[in-house]
Amino acid sequence: MEAPNQQVNGFKPEDITATINALKENPAMAKFEWRVRNKWINGGHNRSNIQDFYGGGKEDTSRTRPFVVDNGEPPILLGNNEGPNPVEFILHGLAGCMTTTMVLHAAAHGIPIDSVETKLSGDWDAQGFLGLDPTVRNGYKQIHIDFKIEGDLTDSQKEQLISFAQKSPVYDIVTHGVPVNIGLQEPEAVA
Amino acid sequence: MEAPNQQVNGFKPEDITATINALKENPAMAKFEWRVRNKWINGGHNRSNIQDFYGGGKEDTSRTRPFVVDNGEPPILLGNNEGPNPVEFILHGLAGCMTTTMVLHAAAHGIPIDSVETKLSGDWDAQGFLGLDPTVRNGYKQIHIDFKIEGDLTDSQKEQLISFAQKSPVYDIVTHGVPVNIGLQEPEAVA
Repeated sequence: MEAPNQQVNGFKPEDITATINALKENPAMAKFEWRVRNKWINGGHNRSNIQDFYGGGKEDTSRTRPFVVDNGEPPILLGNNEGPNPVEFILHGLAGCMTTTMVLHAAAHGIPIDSVETKLSGDWDAQGFLGLDPTVRNGYKQIHIDFKIEGDLTDSQKEQLISFAQKSPVYDIVTHGVPVNIGLQEPEAVA
Repeated sequence: MEAPNQQVNGFKPEDITATINALKENPAMAKFEWRVRNKWINGGHNRSNIQDFYGGGKEDTSRTRPFVVDNGEPPILLGNNEGPNPVEFILHGLAGCMTTTMVLHAAAHGIPIDSVETKLSGDWDAQGFLGLDPTVRNGYKQIHIDFKIEGDLTDSQKEQLISFAQKSPVYDIVTHGVPVNIGLQEPEAVA
């Protein structure tokens, strides 16, 4: 049995229970709108500001300033390594989401974990998005993620942890896809 | 007509042509393997190292040190805003990839653009990944991306630019999904 207020994997199990009970009572609290604003700089370089979002029934104000994150491209893709490139950020988001989802659900089940490391790779063929071969898709053909999990864990518990990781929102997004609406904002009318 | 070596949208059109011709001659050069290594820190905080990749027929060595990028969670999701959260990184990657793909294809067509800004939002319901409502998916229900494009452009050209953006690898990944293989590395044998 865990002592009250003791953290498991960096979470207090009673905080997880309280969150779940709050959402059961008021499911509207579970709705979130995540937002990103991005601006092109030059060539393959652009920058996102990430700060506000809606969640828990209100606009979140916990971030006093924006996270600023740059996309770039390596020289072989005609850039100057101004940042990781967008397809690398997909692997980063997938790694982070599967890891967080795993350790959160493990905490809710009282399973402490010592360490989690992942290595990801994504197979991509530039012929797709350049229109050179119609049989090649534009995005990744396949993604591999390898977990290394340490702790006082049975093989069966490790398999359970992998099943927790598969509840990850980004895992769902990447494996099943999401509808994307595209809008084109009209320029402001000139007086 | 563009003068030789003049940049369009930060790219030299002859560099784009040279790249396309090289890939037409040797399609194996178009194969890339992108890689990310991630390590859990605590709770909803984890960190990726992004450096090496395979592309253009060889291991890339253009990055002398890794990009280091953190995932975090806001307090409402039991974190301390250690970084943007993983689903926000998906919007960041989508924005960046659609923007870069647009301006690259525009450069190849000799269409100069003055500015591109995007605003993205993703609708997400926490009931899904917490297992509270089986009718709610774990990932985004829907993503919206709004473009604001400035330049000496006709409406028809702006529509063409939006169609270029839809060639984006991340747009393909996010709208169509990708198979993800999961491996579990065995711990090293103890001597």
